Order: sequence, then structure tokens, then C-alpha cells
Amino acid sequence: MAKKIIIVGGVAGGATAAARLRRLSEEDEIIMIEKGEYISFANCGLPYYIGDVITNRDSLLVQTVEGMSKKFNLEIRNLSEAIGIDRENRTLAIKDLRTGDVYNESFDRLILSPGARPIVPPFEGLQEANHVFTLRSVPDTDQIKAWVDNKQPEKAVVIGGGFIGLEMAENLVHRGVEVTLVELGNQVMAPLDYEMASLVHKELVDKGVQLILEDGVKSFEDEGKTIVLDSGTKLSSDLTILAIGVRPENELAVQAGLEVGKRGGIIVNEHLQTEDPDIYAIGDAIEVKDYIQHVPTMVPLAWPANRQGRLVADHIHGKGVSYKGTLGTSVAKVFDLTVAATGNNEKVLSRLGIASEVVHIHPASNATYYPGGQPLALKLIFEPETGKLFGAQAVGYEGVEKRIDVIATAIKGGLNVADLADLELAYAPPYSSAKDPVNMAGYVASNIVDGEVNIVHYHEIDRIIEQGGLLVDVREPEEREIGFIPGSINIPLGDLRNRIEELPKDQTIYITCQAGLRGYLATRILNHNGYESSNLSGGYKTYQAGKCVWKENVVQS
Amino acid sequence: MAKKIIIVGGVAGGATAAARLRRLSEEDEIIMIEKGEYISFANCGLPYYIGDVITNRDSLLVQTVEGMSKKFNLEIRNLSEAIGIDRENRTLAIKDLRTGDVYNESFDRLILSPGARPIVPPFEGLQEANHVFTLRSVPDTDQIKAWVDNKQPEKAVVIGGGFIGLEMAENLVHRGVEVTLVELGNQVMAPLDYEMASLVHKELVDKGVQLILEDGVKSFEDEGKTIVLDSGTKLSSDLTILAIGVRPENELAVQAGLEVGKRGGIIVNEHLQTEDPDIYAIGDAIEVKDYIQHVPTMVPLAWPANRQGRLVADHIHGKGVSYKGTLGTSVAKVFDLTVAATGNNEKVLSRLGIASEVVHIHPASNATYYPGGQPLALKLIFEPETGKLFGAQAVGYEGVEKRIDVIATAIKGGLNVADLADLELAYAPPYSSAKDPVNMAGYVASNIVDGEVNIVHYHEIDRIIEQGGLLVDVREPEEREIGFIPGSINIPLGDLRNRIEELPKDQTIYITCQAGLRGYLATRILNHNGYESSNLSGGYKTYQAGKCVWKENVVQS
Repeated sequence: MAKKIIIVGGVAGGATAAARLRRLSEEDEIIMIEKGEYISFANCGLPYYIGDVITNRDSLLVQTVEGMSKKFNLEIRNLSEAIGIDRENRTLAIKDLRTGDVYNESFDRLILSPGARPIVPPFEGLQEANHVFTLRSVPDTDQIKAWVDNKQPEKAVVIGGGFIGLEMAENLVHRGVEVTLVELGNQVMAPLDYEMASLVHKELVDKGVQLILEDGVKSFEDEGKTIVLDSGTKLSSDLTILAIGVRPENELAVQAGLEVGKRGGIIVNEHLQTEDPDIYAIGDAIEVKDYIQHVPTMVPLAWPANRQGRLVADHIHGKGVSYKGTLGTSVAKVFDLTVAATGNNEKVLSRLGIASEVVHIHPASNATYYPGGQPLALKLIFEPETGKLFGAQAVGYEGVEKRIDVIATAIKGGLNVADLADLELAYAPPYSSAKDPVNMAGYVASNIVDGEVNIVHYHEIDRIIEQGGLLVDVREPEEREIGFIPGSINIPLGDLRNRIEELPKDQTIYITCQAGLRGYLATRILNHNGYESSNLSGGYKTYQAGKCVWKENVVQS
Repeated sequence: MAKKIIIVGGVAGGATAAARLRRLSEEDEIIMIEKGEYISFANCGLPYYIGDVITNRDSLLVQTVEGMSKKFNLEIRNLSEAIGIDRENRTLAIKDLRTGDVYNESFDRLILSPGARPIVPPFEGLQEANHVFTLRSVPDTDQIKAWVDNKQPEKAVVIGGGFIGLEMAENLVHRGVEVTLVELGNQVMAPLDYEMASLVHKELVDKGVQLILEDGVKSFEDEGKTIVLDSGTKLSSDLTILAIGVRPENELAVQAGLEVGKRGGIIVNEHLQTEDPDIYAIGDAIEVKDYIQHVPTMVPLAWPANRQGRLVADHIHGKGVSYKGTLGTSVAKVFDLTVAATGNNEKVLSRLGIASEVVHIHPASNATYYPGGQPLALKLIFEPETGKLFGAQAVGYEGVEKRIDVIATAIKGGLNVADLADLELAYAPPYSSAKDPVNMAGYVASNIVDGEVNIVHYHEIDRIIEQGGLLVDVREPEEREIGFIPGSINIPLGDLRNRIEELPKDQTIYITCQAGLRGYLATRILNHNGYESSNLSGGYKTYQAGKCVWKENVVQS
């Protein structure tokens, strides 16, 4: 029997649901309501249009109202705002934003895909500021781009170090603007842990961004030309982007009495139904389950929205599909770096009280003897007893998101760290090594799960040395010239067997090297000779990042 | 108890086994025997050194005899050939190739990692030819490079279109040599099926390689300066590379009475033990199980060799590890193209009599609105009833091996085509689309498994039209100007609903478009209106490749 389905929100999940609904039925009446002028636009591309990386504005409009209406036989009403749900009578109140008229439309099924909107705190002086922008829609983009094109701002301040903040910082630098990025936390990019984000901090500073961490906006002065931070620092700004975060557009759901979570996300079941089984909700507006830990979370990303759009359409047509939760796989380009992550990070696990172990490796992205091999920092997080995969983070130049995609796939396949070592990945010198970085991470983590090696972490080693611990750096002496961990002594790996008598047997010997591999070999030699040893995970490279040895250029309040 | 372990072969698997053995024991006596001068060299890098892409010869020598001996406390004897195994007395006869002396060395465990050598058929005139080379070792490489450097050959002929043949063709073109590639089969790159290899044929021809398929060498004339093919074609050559294939170095095993398979691979059990449990064999010399179908196969690649080297060491040290078989994941760079594959191809499945279905998609490597999005051809092969993954092939410019790595991981995780749609992969415009190509392939294949759509293949459609079938091309009229399938009629997708009455209801409507997606949408419309329909998988793009529409430049005998 033909149904009448209304979709609130015509971007990402909403557009996907509409297309899939039509593919499943030619008879259903499908109405798509969109508050803005544009549907199905490339929201992830907006910063790049401002940066002149994407030069064709039309290319941002993935589907036009006319094109999509025709292709999928939809009724699309843009500039139309859904303002109320009458659950009893199964009607939606819609306001035509062109005319101001309000009318009711009946529905058999309703899909809420309203998205999330930028958070704008009530900063003092914000009302009087005339060049402070948020970025969500095509009109937002047009405004910011026009400002850059016409006003030629010299200085911009980006508030917030998430995806949009970083992408805006990069694209404004492309446009020749001097950028300051202000982040309230001690790191940018929340999906990463600190020592991985530290590599991003370095890239930002190297590319000329002034990075201010652990500081926030207190007020705007001089019509927004001066930004006063909590620390008292004053920044002058010709263009300010507020990219603090987003909050779900949940008003319609709340008004209809549908349950929302602590952070405002609309609550849905595994079929993406709200409390009212005829009303579904998808995308940035909903609370989802963390795929691994099954706890509630909010993940405003494109993949989940699209996947949910598809599943909702399938469920409406009687397919017994479920949404299994969100891993939160993500990637961003930050100047020359690629930064990617999947699953749980240490911060989240620690907050949840879940025990985890991590390994850091620093392989090359492809065979070092072939041109183009670039350093890659890869972190793997897992359950110490079982080797169950919790998450991974990678920062580098080439093949970064490839490794994260592989690990995200492994997680969905229920594989553990030992299985990562057994993944048969494509190898030729331009692409990888015969042991891919993912294999290496699997081997290193398996050695820990199997109890073959003990490790210690960058944030623990200084205190260990302070308390009289012995740290042996097994690099060559010339490698220590670029830097070493204070208090470490040097015995190169090749000399260790001959000089092993120099080491005391009554205490743990801590080992470090450049990236962790030689340190591991050293612990094997020590253990077989009756010593107790522990290897610094990721070696000096991870220590350097975690201790932010380059931090003189980062302002931390 | 300390053991004495001899490893025959110091490259790839042998070197990995040695290093792992030492990490597992400081006491064992580990002797590595290598026939050649060099151990642990970068065999996958050799063509690139000839091509001056890798310019530092030393970088090919991953480990030196001295360095590796010291690092892992090994006894490494290069230029030493193992010539006989006395199984009863547990001794190996070794010939010192410097002196000619032969001596016996006892062992507790023996690991055979002798590799495979290039096949050189007894071509007429080959004995008198002085510039015909094979490529396996560093000295082979030095010889070929010296020939190119000193003799400045104008014309080269490469015999064989496998990995080494293609890499040599590319690298010789880099060196300014005019290259002819001769392949006995109807396609290069055996891991691919024909219509995917066809994309490689086009690239070779576009880059100036003369490609001769379905022809082989009959004889050499004029001291090798003329090559006579089976077809009678004569090629002049200043440099000839024989890259026909490899055969396992199984003589030592055969002489010792150890079983070998039909194609000469040493037979081992899941622990990589030969019939003699103290004698292991690994790498290119052994027969392995196909990971998916569990049938015997030979896969001379670096990943399996290294993995096996690790596992053998673990098994010798009492760990209950097993080698689970080889997927055959592979990748090659062919000029600007990247070509990758994993698992079973259609040719193999057809030979084994296993029913399979395939889908072809042609997505962009990343969001089309972001610069750098490149076409990607992706083929997925699966069990039609269950959606079990059999294999995948990809050809394109960016993100090619990434998709194959993800699918290889999915196979090891036991995922099926529907699960591919549910993989949460990293998306940002520079890297992918919100629905990754792997997701898309999963959706397309799931639709077939679920019976939502019927498909037909490029190699079937001409006959269908000949027999009176109706093929509707749903592209826009201007798209047909670049080419269309003979006999097809044109109804653009946007007009299909209005013009549906023009189509007969008493026969299947076959549909084609550019890449398969619009064709799928058309079949949905038709089916919901009571028609029977079938979509051409991969659309005109796959047809064009499979029918080799550019074949005028490829010589096929």
C-alpha cells in the first residue's frame, strides 16, 4: 500500500533516504522539507570553496531541487521549515519561509533529518561584531567567501580546533590570511589523543598558524575587531570563524515530546525509530551507540548520516535492518598532513573506566628504498588481556587513512590485534612494505598481549627516571644529537650483548630508541639474559610528540 | 634447550625467520646459508633501480651480511649453496662457492627458503644471444642496468606480462627505451580478469609500449638481435627481458625425498612443515592453500614469504601457530595506473567450477567536487546466494590499493557483501566520498544477492541484442557521442517515467548507462511498473573495457 512519507531535512541522510525510498517504491508519496534554499549540498566541501581549492560553486550543489525532484519523482519544498508535529493526527506543521504561511501536511511516516547547528555562546560584544561567522550552509559559505574576496582581511581568528576549525584555518592561509587558531582544550582534533594531536600542532605552527591552546573567548570588542581571551590575551581580527562545535537541531522532536539524550541528541532505537514508531530520526541530530562500547555518543559525520538514511528507507519498507552503532571513523587534511582515526581513543576509554593498552609505531608509508616513503605515526588501542581492538589513530603524509580504513574494517570483522598481523595487504614498493604498518602494529600489540614484552609510555618515563629508574637509549650516539630523553644513558643496540654486564640485574631496565623497534630487540636480548626490561612505546618519536618538544611556538595558557 | 637451526635462503622469508628466531632465543645457534652474495635485498625494488627511480644501489641492500650478523647474532654464510640433505643424520651438505669446498653441517631444524627462479625455456638461438636477461637478484640487476647505461639500447623486448614484465617495461620506458611487451595469454597481469586487464592494456599503449598479446617467442636469431614469434612476427631487440614466470627451487627438497606438488611447490602442512617435521619450507618454493577455496596454489609474493618466516620461527619455539593460506593480495604500479587485486578472480573460479557473480562499479576515487578525484574501476566477485566475498580487483589512479586492502581485510574478517556496505570508512573530500567505493560495491552486490535487481554482463550483451533483446541506454543523448553499444536505443533516465509506455511488457528490458548507477535506477522504475529488467553491470565503461574498444593499438594474434 502506498505511503505518504515526509522527510525533514534535505541534506546528507535526508537526501539519501529520499532516493532510497523511491528506489523501493514508485507509488509512495515522498515529500522533502528543507529549511534552507539548497538540498543535498557538499557540506564537507564548503571550507575548500572559501579557500579557492574548489573553484566551481555549482559543484557544491550535488543535487538541485529540480534535478532531484525529476530523477526520483519527489516533491521537494525548500525554504520550508517544519515547525510542529501533531503526533495524534499525524500531521506536520510547515512554514513557507518565502511567504510566512503555515500549513499542515499529513504523513504516514516522518523522517527527521534536521542536522546540527553551530554552537554560538552569548559572548559579550558578539551582537555588535559584524564579521563573525559560523559555517554550516551554502549561504554561510557565500558570506564568508564574499568577505574574504571583498574585504581582503589580513588577520583571521578561528575559534575551535575541530574539523571545521582546522579546515577553515588551512583554507584561510591558502587565501593569504594570517590565522590564529584558539582552542579551549589542550589539543585540536578531539578524536585523537594528545601525543597524536601534538603532530598536528606542529604542522599548524610550521605552516604559520598561531596556535593558542587552553584558552577561550571571553568577549568581543571594537565591533569584533578585538577578541579578548580568558587569559587576557587580546587578538585583533578582520574575520572570525566560530567553530566551537555543533548541537543537534532537536526542537521539533522536543516539542513533539520525543525523548532526547543528555547532550540533546534525539533518542532512537536500533531501527532508528523515536519513541513514536512512525517517526524516525537520523544524522547529526540523533544520539547513537558507540559501536564498540555500546554507550551513547554523538557523532556528527557524513558516513553515519548517509548509512542511516539508507537503513530508514529499508526499514520503512519492511526490511529487518538495524543500525549497529557508530565507530566514528574520520579523516582530515591539515595542510600537508593527513590525520585519521577510528573507534575509541584513550581519553574516551579512560572516561568510561575501561582498561586499555596502546602501542605507537613510526613506520614509513611505503618501502624506504622507494621514493616517496614518508613517516607515519600509528597508534593502536586495544584490550590488554584479549587484544580486542578498541581504536586507532594515524598521522602522516601518505597512506594514512588507508591504514585507518583497514583497522576500521578489522573492527567490524571482529578481528583482534593478532589478526592484524595476519592481514594480507597489497604490497609493492610504491605503496607499502612487505610487512604493512598495520601488520607491524599487530605484531607489536600481540607481543604485549602474549606477555613477550613489557612497555612503558611517554607520559610515564620522566617520573620513572626521577625515581631512580635506569633508561638505556639503544640508538647510535649520533642519533642522540637531535635530542634524547633527559637522564637516559646510551648503549647502541649492536653493543648491547657485549656490554650487558654493565647493567644491574636488580632493577627493571627501561629501554628507548628512535621509534620503538630497536628497543624491542633490546628487551628480547635483556630478557633472555635474565634481566627485567620494559620498552618505551614509540621510542623518542612518541616522547618528542607527547612532551611537545617543539612547544615553544604553541601558546599554552 | 638450545637448538641448531639452519636456514637455506637469506632473502624475504629466510631473513624474517632468522630475525624472529633470535628474538625468541638468545641461545639457539642460527646459521643462514645463501647461494648469492647478498642477503635480505629488496627484490621488489630491483626494476626501479634499473629505471633510475631508485638511485642509491645501497638502499636495495636492506640488511648486509655484517650488519645482520651483528644485530641478530647470526652466522650468515653467503655464496654458499646447500646441495644435499641427509635426513637420517640431520646434516646439510654445503658447497662454498668461493672455494668449491663441500662440507656437512648438522642441524636440529632446517628451514628451506630457497625461493623461485625465472623460467627460461630452451628457445632456439637463446644460447647464442648475448643480451637476454632474467631478473631475480642484485647481480642480475647490475647486469641489466650496466647494459642500459653502457649500450644505450634503442629497442627492448619484454617477454611476459606479469608483475616483473610490466615493471621492467615501465622502467625501460623511463630510460628512454622503445619497449615491446609480448604476452602469450590474451591479457597481462594474471590476477585480473580480462576486462580489468584491458584497462592496463590501454595504459601501456597510451604510454608508448607496443603490446603484443596471444603470441610467444619461437626463436632468437642474429645473436638475439631478432626475436621470432610464433605468429611469424619478427621483433628487433637490443635488450630482451625474459619474465615468463618463475618455478620453485625445489631440487634440494626433491633430492631429499620430500613431496612436491604438480607445479613443483614443496608440500607443507599448516605449520609449514614438510613431510619431515624437522624440515620446514616457506616462501616462493612452497605450495600453499588458497585462503578462500582451500585448494592448492602457488603465490610467489613477498607478504606470504615474510609471514611464513615469522610463523616458522614461532612454531619451532613451540607456539601453536598455523598458516591459514594465501589470499594473493597484490598491487602493481603500471605507469600512472595502480592495479590491485585480492582473492579469487573469475578465471580461477570458473576453472574450479565454483559459481560466482560479479559487479563492476566506476566511482571516483574521492568526492568529485574536490580536485584530484580520479576514475576508479572496481570489480567485486562473490557467491551469488550468500554474498560471501571471493575477491576483488581495482584499477585506477588514486586510492586503488586502499580499497583492495579494505576488501582483503573484510575477507579475513569473514564479512560478506552486505557487510561491505556497512563498513564505516574514513571520509573527507580529499580522500573518498560519504559512500566509499567499497560501500557502493557492497550495496550494488547486496541488491543482487537480495534479488532486487538482475544484471547482465559485458560479454553477454552483444549476443542478447543479436537474438532480438532490447537494450535501452538511459544516458543523455550527448553522452552517446563518445560511443554506445550497437543496437541500443536511447531513453534518458529523466524521461523514462514519461516514456515508459514505449517499452514492451512481454520481454526483458535490458538497461545500460555510463557506469551502471543510472541503469540501476532505471531497473527500479521498470520493475515497480511491472516490467522485467536487467542492468548491464558497469555500464558502457565496463563494456568498453571488456570489448577492448581501443584495441586497434594492441596486437592480438
